Amino acid sequence: MTTPLPAGFQTAAVEAGVKPGTSRLDLALFISDQPCAAAGVFTTNLVCGAPVKVSRERLPCGTARGVVINAGNANACTGDQGIADAQAMAAAVGEAIGCAGEDILVCSTGVIGRLLPVEKIVKGIATAAKILSPSPEAFDQAARSIMTTDTFPKQVTRELHLAGGTARITGVCKGAAMIAPNMATMLCVIMTDAKVTPEVAHAALKTAVADSFNCISVDGHESTSDSVILLANGVSGVDCSSGETQVLFSKAIADVAMELAQLIIKDAEGASHFVTIDVTGCRSREEAFKIAKTVADSALVKTAICGADPNWGRIVSAAGYAGVPLLEEEVSLWINGIALYAAGVPLPFDATAASQSMRENRDTHIDLRLTQGDASIRFWTSDLTKEYVALNADYTT
Amino acid sequence: MTTPLPAGFQTAAVEAGVKPGTSRLDLALFISDQPCAAAGVFTTNLVCGAPVKVSRERLPCGTARGVVINAGNANACTGDQGIADAQAMAAAVGEAIGCAGEDILVCSTGVIGRLLPVEKIVKGIATAAKILSPSPEAFDQAARSIMTTDTFPKQVTRELHLAGGTARITGVCKGAAMIAPNMATMLCVIMTDAKVTPEVAHAALKTAVADSFNCISVDGHESTSDSVILLANGVSGVDCSSGETQVLFSKAIADVAMELAQLIIKDAEGASHFVTIDVTGCRSREEAFKIAKTVADSALVKTAICGADPNWGRIVSAAGYAGVPLLEEEVSLWINGIALYAAGVPLPFDATAASQSMRENRDTHIDLRLTQGDASIRFWTSDLTKEYVALNADYTT
Repeated sequence: MTTPLPAGFQTAAVEAGVKPGTSRLDLALFISDQPCAAAGVFTTNLVCGAPVKVSRERLPCGTARGVVINAGNANACTGDQGIADAQAMAAAVGEAIGCAGEDILVCSTGVIGRLLPVEKIVKGIATAAKILSPSPEAFDQAARSIMTTDTFPKQVTRELHLAGGTARITGVCKGAAMIAPNMATMLCVIMTDAKVTPEVAHAALKTAVADSFNCISVDGHESTSDSVILLANGVSGVDCSSGETQVLFSKAIADVAMELAQLIIKDAEGASHFVTIDVTGCRSREEAFKIAKTVADSALVKTAICGADPNWGRIVSAAGYAGVPLLEEEVSLWINGIALYAAGVPLPFDATAASQSMRENRDTHIDLRLTQGDASIRFWTSDLTKEYVALNADYTT
Repeated sequence: MTTPLPAGFQTAAVEAGVKPGTSRLDLALFISDQPCAAAGVFTTNLVCGAPVKVSRERLPCGTARGVVINAGNANACTGDQGIADAQAMAAAVGEAIGCAGEDILVCSTGVIGRLLPVEKIVKGIATAAKILSPSPEAFDQAARSIMTTDTFPKQVTRELHLAGGTARITGVCKGAAMIAPNMATMLCVIMTDAKVTPEVAHAALKTAVADSFNCISVDGHESTSDSVILLANGVSGVDCSSGETQVLFSKAIADVAMELAQLIIKDAEGASHFVTIDVTGCRSREEAFKIAKTVADSALVKTAICGADPNWGRIVSAAGYAGVPLLEEEVSLWINGIALYAAGVPLPFDATAASQSMRENRDTHIDLRLTQGDASIRFWTSDLTKEYVALNADYTT
């Protein structure tokens, strides 16, 4: 896989010796040659990792130079020492590349509740800084080094062709399911050589995350360390800080975030279906979101999809307890384009054909339409399989 | 099993031919010889069955004579015809036993979205009315006839010894998980020969349900037809409508509801563990409830218990996203009496011994203690196993 970086960015990955076993990349640097406008969106879990606390304090700011990520140990539930360790990681990167520690953002993923082997990591950072490279190959290694239960690295790139020139946006992420003793956090770094203010970067990222990473759910369990970071170094000289260029920039950021979020669901643990849930005709986006998330998180909906059952009852009844006022006659439902339920009444349909459509397609489309208003949401989830249970129950044996 | 009924109650069960296959009891009557004070608590799902709509309108009232329950077809999502059918069931019972149809409450469980075979049911009601009996054997048949995926009938009885004499309280319920094409509703009927007003009955039932049926979760999916009904016919002459007798009556109702609710969790689909979650030290019962339910509904917590893993991280992080303001240092956790996490810091513990304790005991105790106040809750759930997925995904094959 050769995903190009934006101009002025370099990455590196090394084996710091944090992940158990040998020969496993577990430390990555994502560094800009120039100071960046930076923005971040983090987990809202009140039990959150030290790196989240440290990075959150530094954003939004105008001088971030990069991100350091270690896998294999999440540095969460580690008290004051955890904070000191996260700061030490940032300081080590700053020393190696010649900037203040405060200019480096930090992410960790892996086991929670264990202190970081910070000496190993600091040593790894020094090694990584020496092999920083703008090459797609180095970036691919970096993308692999942050994987936990992911089965493939996740990188997305876009070019933004504007009157002022071409800017590139490249993102990388890792998957969002939690396997203990690892807590498989969702982490994402998006880099761009477009020129924007921190405020524009933050606004673009916030909107992008709302429609992408916040609209996916594997098991509904929010990790302690989820982080999405945007770095814009302006090296392309393409200014996207206002007017139409800002709109196009924000849209491109949203596209990258959306594709990355979908890759996470495509790689969900044990999943046999990629499920898109459209909820339309609601009074507000918030209500549409509540319905979509309730449907997505229902174990009964997820198992029905696993079993290729066009079970309208589980979907409609999940909508019924989502906490959104509704009448049955305001609800209609299609699965994979087949009408199952219209205005509160189940329709006669060919159950064999509907089931076959679900069995033979990895993609399942749930289309839930209300008649209350114009607001809508698109949400993605995976199904619940025996393999998911095996991955999450049998890991200790 | 011989569970005695309170004085003045009779039950019956017949094969009405609604459940697929032959020789399957699927219709039950629970009838009082005298008018009863009656109370009911129903699903809050906005997509709810016709029997719920019909029964809800009749409660609380002072003249209910009994309950009719059919299994095999839930009469939900059936429009106006469904309402008419539920009323027809009540009318048929009234005609058979000599009271108004309005004095009969109705419950249905089974497939949703299909019209009831109401002629078969009306015929079955007439047959059942002829074999009404106060015997424990008839009651056992009635308890079996309402089962869907339950593996055993669920009956509980208590005697209330008061100065004025002895009253009996006997309850029956069926399990709360949803297997399509069946929607396996939670249904419960509690009968007593104590003498109470409808207001006292309603207050006692509401409190009892809050601490029992509302504190259990198998998969977090709320059924369209959940109903808990209390009938008090006063035949014992033991007045429990005020003062200490009211307190003792309410406590006995709560005891019966609690034991029935726990039987449902003990019979949860595919479960290998019965999990009790205590959340204490909260600012309010509502906040304790939110934390307990979030922990109970986490697929990651449930699979960890299935795998006998003392995974404090999944539990503490679930508490962290429950929507209750908290600091890590306000949280401590024990599993099966083993301290794992104290005041925000993971403790060293013997993981092998902790895992062994979880593997060798069907009961798992999660004890989550906060330091915010005096409010608490006790909640019950089951674990998530491959068998659960098989039951809920593979039923169509």
